[in-house]
Amino acid sequence: MVRGRISRLSVRDVRFPTSLGGHGSDAMHTDPDYSAAYVVIETDAEDGLKGCGITFTLGKGTEVVVCAVNALAHHVLNKDLKDIVGDFRGFYRQLANDGQLRWIGPEKGVVHLATAAILNAVWDLWAKQEGKPVWKLLVDMDPRTLVSCIDFRYITDVLTEEDALEILQKGQVGKKEREEQMLAQGYPAYTTSCAWLGYSDDMLKQLCTQALKDGWTRFKVKVGADLQDDERRCRLIRDVIGPEKTLMMDANQRWDVPEAVEWMSKLAKFKPLWIEEPTSPDDILGHATISKALVPLGIGVATGEQFLFAPMLVEWASVNWCST
Amino acid sequence: MVRGRISRLSVRDVRFPTSLGGHGSDAMHTDPDYSAAYVVIETDAEDGLKGCGITFTLGKGTEVVVCAVNALAHHVLNKDLKDIVGDFRGFYRQLANDGQLRWIGPEKGVVHLATAAILNAVWDLWAKQEGKPVWKLLVDMDPRTLVSCIDFRYITDVLTEEDALEILQKGQVGKKEREEQMLAQGYPAYTTSCAWLGYSDDMLKQLCTQALKDGWTRFKVKVGADLQDDERRCRLIRDVIGPEKTLMMDANQRWDVPEAVEWMSKLAKFKPLWIEEPTSPDDILGHATISKALVPLGIGVATGEQFLFAPMLVEWASVNWCST
Repeated sequence: MVRGRISRLSVRDVRFPTSLGGHGSDAMHTDPDYSAAYVVIETDAEDGLKGCGITFTLGKGTEVVVCAVNALAHHVLNKDLKDIVGDFRGFYRQLANDGQLRWIGPEKGVVHLATAAILNAVWDLWAKQEGKPVWKLLVDMDPRTLVSCIDFRYITDVLTEEDALEILQKGQVGKKEREEQMLAQGYPAYTTSCAWLGYSDDMLKQLCTQALKDGWTRFKVKVGADLQDDERRCRLIRDVIGPEKTLMMDANQRWDVPEAVEWMSKLAKFKPLWIEEPTSPDDILGHATISKALVPLGIGVATGEQFLFAPMLVEWASVNWCST
Repeated sequence: MVRGRISRLSVRDVRFPTSLGGHGSDAMHTDPDYSAAYVVIETDAEDGLKGCGITFTLGKGTEVVVCAVNALAHHVLNKDLKDIVGDFRGFYRQLANDGQLRWIGPEKGVVHLATAAILNAVWDLWAKQEGKPVWKLLVDMDPRTLVSCIDFRYITDVLTEEDALEILQKGQVGKKEREEQMLAQGYPAYTTSCAWLGYSDDMLKQLCTQALKDGWTRFKVKVGADLQDDERRCRLIRDVIGPEKTLMMDANQRWDVPEAVEWMSKLAKFKPLWIEEPTSPDDILGHATISKALVPLGIGVATGEQFLFAPMLVEWASVNWCST
C-alpha cells in the first residue's frame, strides 16, 4: 500500500565529462557529456523513502531540463501518492497537458524529458514503498491496472486499450516461468559500449574482445559519419565477434532518406540486424520508405529513444533501460 | 550591406496576464497568459541598431525558453553578421544541431522556440541594417539567395530546393504589381480576436459586430470543449457576420481522430472553411484521415503553429505573423 503526501521535489544538474574519452559519441553527437537531470521526491510518510528519477541528457541544456522540472513541480507537490498511482494516466495527462506549459512542447523535447524524470521518480517511490524493484512492480500488477497507467489517446491506430489488455491477459500464461528464467539467466540485452564513433580501432578491438569474453552476443556499432571508416570498423568488429553473433548499427538521425538506403546497401555485407535512426525522428514516412528499401537486404529499421507516439512507453523504457 | 560583430545577446521573460480576461483561451489552453521570450542582439557597429526577436509562449515555461536561449547564445556571440546572413541555412543548422543541445529536442519544443527567437532577432537586425522591414527584405531578395536561407533537408519529399527556386523565379512576374497592391490594400488576414473560447456570448456578439464594421471579412472561432456551446456560438457568429463571410474553426489539438470527424460533421452546417489542429500535431496520418473524411462536407483541415517539417518556415511565419 502506498502512503504519504509528496512534500518535496528537488532536482539536480548532474554531468559527467564523457566527451573526454569519446564515450557515447556518434555521427550526430560527436562530443556528448552523458548527463542527467536528477529528480528526488520525498513524502511526509515516516518511512523516509525517496523516489529518484533521471532523464538522460548530453551535457549542455541539462539546466534547461532542470528549469522545466521546476516549472512542473507544482503538479506533484502536496499530492497524495495514492491519488497519483490510483490514476496514473490522469497524472501523466496533467503533467503533459498543463494549459500554459504544453505550448512549449506538448509531449516533446524539454517538457517531455522533464515529465519523464518526474514520472520515473514516482515509479521509483511507488516500487520502494511496495518493497520491490520497478520491473517487479510492473510484473506483479494486474493487467487492468497496468493498462490504466498508459495513455492510449494518440496510439489507438496502432494499439487500443482493449488490445493491450488482451495481450497482457494472454501473457499471464507462463509468466511465472518466464520470470524465473529471467532471474536465473538475465534479460536479453546488447552492448553499445564497445563501438562508440570516437573510439580508435585499437580500442574497438580490445573492447569487443573483452565483451565477447564477458558473454555478450549482441553488439551495436555507431555509423554514418564516413562510409570508409564505417566499412573498416564493421569489418574489424565482425572479425572479432565472428559471423554468427548479432550486429546492430545506429546512424543517430544522420542521413536523409536516399542517403540512408545507399549507405546501408554498402554496409549490408556486414549483416546488420537493423539500422537504428537512419534519418530524422520526425520523418515517419521516410522511415517507412527506408524500411521497405532494406527488406531485400534483410536489414530492419529501428527507431531511437526519440519517438513521437506512446510517450508513456518512453518513460517505461527509460526506467528499464539496458543500453543506449 | 550588413555590418558588425554580434557583441551582446540579452533575453527577457515578458508576460501579460491575458488569462484574466479570457483573451487567447481555447479548448486546450483555457487560461493562457500570452507572453514571450524577448531576445535583443547588438553589434559592435557604430550604427547603434539592435535586432529584436520574440518567440511566443503562454506564460508558464517562458523561463524555460529563456534558459534555452542562453544555452544557445554562444552560437551567435562574436559572429560577424555578414557571415551569418551569408550562410543562413548553415547558421540555422548550427543552432538546431548543436551536438549536445539537440538531444533535448532537435527542431522541436523549447530548443526550437529558443532558436526561433534568436533567428527572428537576426532577421530583424539584418532588415534594419538594410533600412527596410523584414517582409521587404524578403521580397527584394534574389530567389537564389532566398532559397539558400531555407533548410530543405527533411522536406525534400514535399519540396526540393530546385522546385522552390522555380516557384520563386516564376513569381518574379507581376511581383512589382502585387507589392503595390499589397501596400495599397493591405495583406489578406483573418481575425481570431473576436471569438476566444472564454468569451461570453455578449462579448462575442459585440466584438464580431465591431470587427465587421472595421472591415474584417474572415473570422476564426475556437471550438472543441463542448459541442452545444460550439453550436450556440457558431450560430451567434453566423447571425452577426452573415452567410457569405468566411468562418474558420480551431480545436487546438483537442480531439482524437473519430471525435474530430464526428464533431465537425455537427458543425458543418455553419460552413467553416477549415478546422485547424483537430488532433495531436504529431499525428500526421490522423490529420490525413480527418481531412479525407471532411472533403464531402467541404471542410478543409489546417495545421497549427506546431508542425514538424520546414522549421525555417515556422520562423518565417512568426516573423510575418498576422493573427494566432
